[in-house]
This record gives sequence, structure tokens and C-alpha cells, in this order.
Amino acid sequence: MAEQSLSVFKTTSYQEKPNDHELSFGRTFTDHMFLMDYSEESGWHDARITPYQPLQVDPAAMVFHYGQSVFEGLKAYLSPEGEPLLFRPQKNLQRLNQSNERLCIPQIDEDFLLYALKQLIQIEKDWIPTSEGMSLYIRPTVISTQPFLGVAPSTNYTLMIILSPVGAYYKEGINPVKIAVENDYVRAVRGGTGEAKTGGNYAASLKAQEVAAQDGYAQVLWLDGVEKRYIEEVGSMNVFFKIGDEVVTPQLNGSILNGITRDSAMALLRHWGYHVTERVITIDELYTEYEKGNVLEAFGTGTAAAISPIGQLDWGHKEMVFNNGETGHLAKNLYDTLMGIQYGKIDDPFDWVINVNTAVSTKVS
Amino acid sequence: MAEQSLSVFKTTSYQEKPNDHELSFGRTFTDHMFLMDYSEESGWHDARITPYQPLQVDPAAMVFHYGQSVFEGLKAYLSPEGEPLLFRPQKNLQRLNQSNERLCIPQIDEDFLLYALKQLIQIEKDWIPTSEGMSLYIRPTVISTQPFLGVAPSTNYTLMIILSPVGAYYKEGINPVKIAVENDYVRAVRGGTGEAKTGGNYAASLKAQEVAAQDGYAQVLWLDGVEKRYIEEVGSMNVFFKIGDEVVTPQLNGSILNGITRDSAMALLRHWGYHVTERVITIDELYTEYEKGNVLEAFGTGTAAAISPIGQLDWGHKEMVFNNGETGHLAKNLYDTLMGIQYGKIDDPFDWVINVNTAVSTKVS
Repeated sequence: MAEQSLSVFKTTSYQEKPNDHELSFGRTFTDHMFLMDYSEESGWHDARITPYQPLQVDPAAMVFHYGQSVFEGLKAYLSPEGEPLLFRPQKNLQRLNQSNERLCIPQIDEDFLLYALKQLIQIEKDWIPTSEGMSLYIRPTVISTQPFLGVAPSTNYTLMIILSPVGAYYKEGINPVKIAVENDYVRAVRGGTGEAKTGGNYAASLKAQEVAAQDGYAQVLWLDGVEKRYIEEVGSMNVFFKIGDEVVTPQLNGSILNGITRDSAMALLRHWGYHVTERVITIDELYTEYEKGNVLEAFGTGTAAAISPIGQLDWGHKEMVFNNGETGHLAKNLYDTLMGIQYGKIDDPFDWVINVNTAVSTKVS
Repeated sequence: MAEQSLSVFKTTSYQEKPNDHELSFGRTFTDHMFLMDYSEESGWHDARITPYQPLQVDPAAMVFHYGQSVFEGLKAYLSPEGEPLLFRPQKNLQRLNQSNERLCIPQIDEDFLLYALKQLIQIEKDWIPTSEGMSLYIRPTVISTQPFLGVAPSTNYTLMIILSPVGAYYKEGINPVKIAVENDYVRAVRGGTGEAKTGGNYAASLKAQEVAAQDGYAQVLWLDGVEKRYIEEVGSMNVFFKIGDEVVTPQLNGSILNGITRDSAMALLRHWGYHVTERVITIDELYTEYEKGNVLEAFGTGTAAAISPIGQLDWGHKEMVFNNGETGHLAKNLYDTLMGIQYGKIDDPFDWVINVNTAVSTKVS
């Protein structure tokens, strides 16, 4: 891949930063963003940090019509010493390229992108909120920009990274939520795009979420699209169950997102000596085990909320209440430990955290 | 729905129109477009015809991240008398609202939208190509524009209609194409978004199309995502088979697009006395009938190409050649008749065609 340079164009009109207590999730954006373009002639080129501003997009740009786009989500955290930290960003950039592969989008130089991201975070580090549990959400996105009405991969793309200082994703915080098992709508299917982080998966999920919300549920539990038996995800998170002495999460099968918080939770649980299995688990098995009193905890994992305990899961008229509807031991420990590591407050046994300040001067080969 | 007014802002710099022989599909756009915005406070508002120009879109606009978008495709044709004609446009606007429903996008006043479309076509009527088989492709699209990173329906949308003078969609024209049965990738599944015209379905199809093209195929034949047995669509078209005295097309099941050319082809075939059935048909049944010599013709239907004959269909190592690889009687008659009706050259027994000039003065209630 050709060596890249990064241009920086600073804004001349800095926004006033909101107070931390005014922040919700994903509604406020920082002063700058990163952009890079792709064309068949030049490959990925014109890497630049610019003022945050509207994109000029042709009405025929393929992203509007054929949904060829991918994204990632990660966060920057402020350590007690005021250092900006990133949590396993290489995993996100790897997954971005895996999503690119599925969506026929050209591969991106991960080392360069990490370098550019660090530069952007350095410029925007004063935007990282300092209050407990708050962070700077990072959203890399690739959109197809060729103005062409025809079903084919685009010849042109734009990659952008935007930043949003965020509070808790779920207003409920670590409080357990009530979930409905989804029996009608399908998020993804094997052979589809479920493993890729692409807009269409999320668009497909909106209707089920809308119906569930009307019925008083926070999210839905997704079953597989083929047999409607196998548990896949919860809302836009991976899902875990503690069944007896086993901690179970559905195995990756092409329609389940390969979550980085999922991977981190498994690593921590194993580090603590738990028996963690990635395997198929049906909703029938879960209910049978529940009736025997064996399902001790349930929770979702994802970058936005980290750990989200499931207090109640309704499968039609069958209600499952886990841990008396309260946050369980595993969920609490995972949440506290992940937060502790991400904010640089506790030991990081897996070297997951990168200090942006010390790492940013590293030359990219 | 509130009564709407339509503002018209004409361009001051008209483009030079390309010669018809220079046109391919979907690469040239006319001087003007139609836009309309939605907000929770004002509903659909600010309907306007403006010069064709880039949209200013926030980098956080939800369409880029969560794929909440829908579109339609139809055409304007020029009659021998030079009158601009539309073919069943009400069906497209109905389907736009059906797609909106699935994607949690607010409903749009179909009468007003047809009125606005007619106004736009009148302004751009000199862009309708006059050469044989050419037309003005019409692309209505709704995109979600709220700048918000969170999985929920957007609060803001923009509807645009852009126009593109087009030649034949397939360079091969009415010549039969070679198709591969797709066994790995899945376009859509029951409970998903297959019946909606939304970007994610097309994004999901790109990889299979890329692989098939490398193997020398024009398109893939999609099987259902659950059992991988039931025939669903071909490329981005509906599919028909003449098996003995029966003309079969897969029945709508939620994952198959309710094609307007599909519907028109069925109506014409029945009008001509053919026995047309919408039913499930497996790839096994097709192959069994083929081996008996009963599969006489196969073709795809869609707005872009109208009718596209299938000369050869490969299912793994099993090759099926229909009608000696030549365009069949049904495909040819349907193509000629649809073209004849659409261009106002022959009798229109179903009153499918609207003359934009005579209809545009009709008041919208």
C-alpha cells in the first residue's frame, strides 16, 4: 500500500464544549473529523483532518441507493493522569477491513488509519469528558460515493472518522433491562451480512425494536433467521448466559457480529477461571435450563454500553427473570473491570489499552 | 395530510445534453431534481424542484451509519407524438410507502408525490431520449438525515427524485444471459427486508454478484435464505419459468420484491390466455422438469431491463439451457408488448400509461 501523508486543517471557529451532565449518546460532535477518499486511479488518498462540516454528496451517490457502507465504533477514555487511552483499536480496524471484504469495499491500511486516529484524538483530546463513565465515542465510517444508478460495487469511497463525547448509551445505565424474544422479524441470516458492521443490518432491526418498545421492552433478543431457534444477539449487542457453572455465548456463524467487548469479556472470564463456551444455544434449551433454576445471569456486551444486564426475557407468554431482575455478579465484575482497564485505573493484564500520547509519535512503516 | 405547495427554482446553467448513443445506464443526470424534507414538527414539507446539485449532509446523518433508506425506480417514455408517458407510477409510489413502513420511515402523500413527479418530468421532458428503447429513468429515494449515532428511526428525512436518461440496462439487451444458482450468499430472508426496496438488500447482493462475474456469469439466481431450495429472484429481477403449459413465478413471501414488471407480465400473460401461477418452486423441481424437457423458457422481469431472457442456468455442475440459449417466444412477446405500451405505440388494454402533459393539470385533492 502506498505511503500516505496526513494533512491537518484546523477550524477557525471552535465550539463551546457542553457540560458533561448535558451529554447523551451520539448527539454532540467535536470540532474536527478525519477524511480520506478512494478512487480506482489513486487508491486511498487525500488523508486529512478538517473542521467538522457537512459532506457534499451527489444525490446519485451509491450509498443512498444501494447501502454499500460499513462502520466501526470504539471509544477514547481519559486516564486519572489525563492521558487519552484507546481500548484495542487494532481489533476495530481489523473488523472494519473484514466488513469491507464482505461489502466489496477496498481494504484500508490499518497501521495508517490507527496513526491518523491517534492524531485526531490528540487534536480533540479536550473533548474527552472527565466525568465518571463518560468517554469520547469514535465512529469510523466508509460510504460509497460514485454517482451511479446500477447494482455494482462503487468505484469511489469516502472514509470519515467523527467523534462524539458521550454519556451512558442506555439511560438505565448498568440497570437490568427487559427484553422480548423476537419471533417475526429477522436481523441477519447465514450467508447474509450479519457478521459485517453495515447499515443494512441496523435498518432491518428498527421495526422489531419499534414494536418491542411499544410493548414496554428495551430491546429484542434475535434468533437465527433460518430455524428461529438459535439465540444470536440482543439488540445491537452480543449476549451471554451463565447456566450452572458454564458461561455461554452463541458461537460466531457468519450472522453474529464478532464483538470486541464479547471477546474481551470471554478473555476476562477465562482469566478469572470461569468455564466459557462459544456454542449454539437454542431458546428452548435456555427456557428448559431456566425452569430447572440453572440460568443464573444474562447480559449483553457491546462498545456503547460495555455490559448491559438482562433482568427479564419474555418468550411469548413465557417469562424468564434472571437474578431476581437485579444486576448479577458476573455482569457487575465485568463492567467494573472493563471500565477500570479502559480508564487506566486498574491493571491491564492483556495490554489492551494504548496511550495515545506515548504511541502517537511512533512512525508508521 | 397537510396540503402541500411546490416551489420551483430553475437552474441558470443548463448542461449540454449527451447524444443518445453516448448514454449508458444511470451515469448522466438531468438539470433539475425534486426535494422534500421531513421533520417531526412539520411532517413532509418544503417540496421543491431545484437545480441538480450535491446534497449537504451531516457526517453523522443516520443513512450513512444505519442504512435507513428506501428507493423506487420507474421510467418516463416519449410517445411517437412526443408526449412524455409514465407506466403505472401509482404502483411505484404505493410500494415506496410499503418500503417506508418496513423501514420505519413516515408515510408520504402518494397523490402529491405523483403531482410533483409530473411537474418535474414536464420541466425535464427534453431530457427524454428519442432513440429506440431509450427512456428517462426516475429514481425517488428517501434518506434518513438526523445527525445521531444510535440505533433508532431517524427524526428527519429527505426525499429526492433524480432523473437519468438511459440506454439499455444490460449491454446484452434482450440477448439471453448465463446465470449461476447462488448457494453461499443470501440476499434476503423471510422476516428481513427482502420485500422492501432498501439499500441493504442490494449491498448484501454485491459479493455474490462479484464472485459470479469472475466465473463468467451475468447474474445469480437467489434461493431462499432458510432452506436454500426455493427460487426467489434473479439478480435484481423477479423470475419466470415456462414449464409445460404453466408459467410459474415464485409467490410473494416477504423476501421477494413485489415487482411492477412482474405484475404487468402476469397480467399480459393471463390476458393472452396463458396459465400463470404464483407458487413456491424449488431448484430441485426446476431441474427435474428440465431433465424431462419441460422447461421451455426462463426470464427475469424488472423496470431497468423490462424482460431479460435466461439462456443458461448453472446449478453447481448441473447445466440447464433453455430454448437452445435463444430468446423465447414469451420473453420476446412480453418485451415487445411492454415496450409498445410504455412508448404509447400499441393498445393499452389495462390503462397502465399516463400522459404527463394531459394529466399534470389535474388538481391534487
